[in-house]
Amino acid sequence: MTIVQVGSSLVEIAGKTRAAASKLAILSTEAKNQAIAAIAQALESSQEEILQANVADCQAAAEGIAKPLYKRLQLDEHKLRDAIAGVRDVGKLADPVGKVQIHRELDTGLILKRITCPLGVLGIIFEARPEAAIQIVSLAIKSGNGVILKCGREAVRSCEAIVKAIKQGLSQTAVSPDAVQLLTTREETLELLKLDKYVDLIIPRGSNSFVRFVQENTRIPVLGHADGICHAYIDQAADINKAVEITVDAKAQYAAVCNAIETLLVHQSIAAEFLPQVATALAENYVQLKGDQRTLEILPNIAAASEIDWETEYSDLILSIKIVDDLEDAIAHINQYGSRHTDVIVTEDIATAEAFFGLVNSAGVFHNCSTRFADGFRYGFGAEVGISTQQMPPRGPVGLEGLVTYKYQITGNGHIVASYTGANAKAFIHRDL
Amino acid sequence: MTIVQVGSSLVEIAGKTRAAASKLAILSTEAKNQAIAAIAQALESSQEEILQANVADCQAAAEGIAKPLYKRLQLDEHKLRDAIAGVRDVGKLADPVGKVQIHRELDTGLILKRITCPLGVLGIIFEARPEAAIQIVSLAIKSGNGVILKCGREAVRSCEAIVKAIKQGLSQTAVSPDAVQLLTTREETLELLKLDKYVDLIIPRGSNSFVRFVQENTRIPVLGHADGICHAYIDQAADINKAVEITVDAKAQYAAVCNAIETLLVHQSIAAEFLPQVATALAENYVQLKGDQRTLEILPNIAAASEIDWETEYSDLILSIKIVDDLEDAIAHINQYGSRHTDVIVTEDIATAEAFFGLVNSAGVFHNCSTRFADGFRYGFGAEVGISTQQMPPRGPVGLEGLVTYKYQITGNGHIVASYTGANAKAFIHRDL
Repeated sequence: MTIVQVGSSLVEIAGKTRAAASKLAILSTEAKNQAIAAIAQALESSQEEILQANVADCQAAAEGIAKPLYKRLQLDEHKLRDAIAGVRDVGKLADPVGKVQIHRELDTGLILKRITCPLGVLGIIFEARPEAAIQIVSLAIKSGNGVILKCGREAVRSCEAIVKAIKQGLSQTAVSPDAVQLLTTREETLELLKLDKYVDLIIPRGSNSFVRFVQENTRIPVLGHADGICHAYIDQAADINKAVEITVDAKAQYAAVCNAIETLLVHQSIAAEFLPQVATALAENYVQLKGDQRTLEILPNIAAASEIDWETEYSDLILSIKIVDDLEDAIAHINQYGSRHTDVIVTEDIATAEAFFGLVNSAGVFHNCSTRFADGFRYGFGAEVGISTQQMPPRGPVGLEGLVTYKYQITGNGHIVASYTGANAKAFIHRDL
Repeated sequence: MTIVQVGSSLVEIAGKTRAAASKLAILSTEAKNQAIAAIAQALESSQEEILQANVADCQAAAEGIAKPLYKRLQLDEHKLRDAIAGVRDVGKLADPVGKVQIHRELDTGLILKRITCPLGVLGIIFEARPEAAIQIVSLAIKSGNGVILKCGREAVRSCEAIVKAIKQGLSQTAVSPDAVQLLTTREETLELLKLDKYVDLIIPRGSNSFVRFVQENTRIPVLGHADGICHAYIDQAADINKAVEITVDAKAQYAAVCNAIETLLVHQSIAAEFLPQVATALAENYVQLKGDQRTLEILPNIAAASEIDWETEYSDLILSIKIVDDLEDAIAHINQYGSRHTDVIVTEDIATAEAFFGLVNSAGVFHNCSTRFADGFRYGFGAEVGISTQQMPPRGPVGLEGLVTYKYQITGNGHIVASYTGANAKAFIHRDL
């Protein structure tokens, strides 16, 4: 079974998605939640088919792909049940659409409102994890957006089975099945990136180099981050125990993720006391260390770090260490080599922490806690559509609010601008209601 | 006098601006307002020098440039006084920096805040109007950002005199004069667009083709709009008098601006009554009309409109007219040919207006008032940095909030993620404070 019919061009598919999204955009919260419930129900009913498709994907991929990728590709009963529970959780989240952000009387009878609305059509490009399709479709529908999914080659059978079930579920609801589309070939990815008239936001989920490729090859806004180079700075006024625990958690609790630290910066006056302790704790967690010259004087048995280490996201149990002269030196290092993701200072000195908050130019600036808290669920957003390291909002972990925009609505009664200009110009009231 | 010293590369200038901006970012509202007052004072003291520089610019340009451009280039005592008053007005606006958007207890002692902060360094590229430099510098400083200005060739002497005065004014304040830079050559524009490590936002102010050039030649986010193709749709349930007045205002009150309408869409059942009346009123305002086939049957003496008219921003006293079958037909036209700027429906039917609000995919959707209200000052934003027709926020007229972003700050007391995972995982509280 192929979802993309032979002969139907991507532009045609995108046009259908936009038409369906346009109707979805103005549905009530209740109608959207019913559609989300129907999706969960349909996925449950199609469980066997989906799991069999995944077995076929895994068999086909078994020889050609790396182990971690294979693990992400695998979708067992347990993972599928969790994903379906996730769909029902999205149903419970607050509707991000229709929120009144500004409500202002410009003049008598001339009322301005700024109201959140869906973006339109999302383009989601993901790699092996088939359950990502389930999560993103539920978030797209909750936020009133159509969605064009593009899955990795290895996951095609699984994703086709999933999207087939989702479309079946939607067919009994107010949301048209056309609102959800699946693409499966690499050529379609390149074409998708060019559809700036049809697609309003691209969310790439994959390797750093893949995200960078997407960013450099589309005029459509991209939500995502290429790099996660996070730092912990241990200040001279740090509590050593906290510093050790936070460093171990931030590096070793889950090293492959973007909010784990890559570089540890240590104030010179605390280095001799702190470094041996943290080195022992990190060794117990199988973390391999690399240090700058001054660090090597205290930890002579670790490898030497070079310039390239400061700009490397290891995504592994490796940590580079640098001794810095002071707070200013630490901040300069972070602003030069960091990726503006998340950085933490460990100190008992509140003024120093505040200076760090003000001067470090990252989406997350933390004090006395692990960088691993940088996450939409932990922030209480309910769902995370991605983490953005761009400077403009949405920045940092992005929940449903990253999938909506806003419109300005004005209602008048024949009001014209000519009345507010020239010699007898009326004045605006500008009163918030 | 040249502000850009020989031998200093643009990267060096950008680095200095960033360093100055980093200090400016954490200044108090009071310190920023003092700097803004000092700028106003210094511009007043340098009035003679600035006006003389402008006379020289005008003399040099007199033969080579078009009249409207010459008019924008001219800076008389009156215009300068208004611009300086504008600086003082910016001083009175609320500080957009340091606003707490989220304040949440994640767990006991683990507090999340989302706080607005400056973007960093703005790159502003403008053409002939020298007073634009004055306005943008005051907005940049109010929002805590450094700014690299690039002015048009014709306005170099004026802008150099203005920036010299601004830097003199700043030299006695907490804001370093390095926070404001001026570039003057075309080559520097191209180089500026490549400085994505130093510049966080580009605001181009110029022709549509210039804005499009900038959008297509930089990876830095761009705030601005290439096209302003706005529509008025006169519904079958329109009040004819309101419809005529709104159409005339939206087209003829100031035709050269982006929020003026280019196309009038008229419901077929009201066309025979409405079109002759609006044609008379528009003729009195020197508006030239072009109509589709059905319009020509009612107004046989106007020119014929072709496909190209629907996608043309005339920026002049020209209006294209099309008769549509119904609301759906009107919305389809707007979503196909519009530039998502601002569109208005004239109708006494509230349900029809609401459908228009929901289905028209533009930054501004208006009901029974002129599209010319789409403006930051009229919306009550105090100052406008530009109008954005992108889909993602900031969208529509953008005030100071378009010049800030936010950071997530977390303060803990040794909190680590390991405590919130696994068998004995602690639960998050997620309580808004």
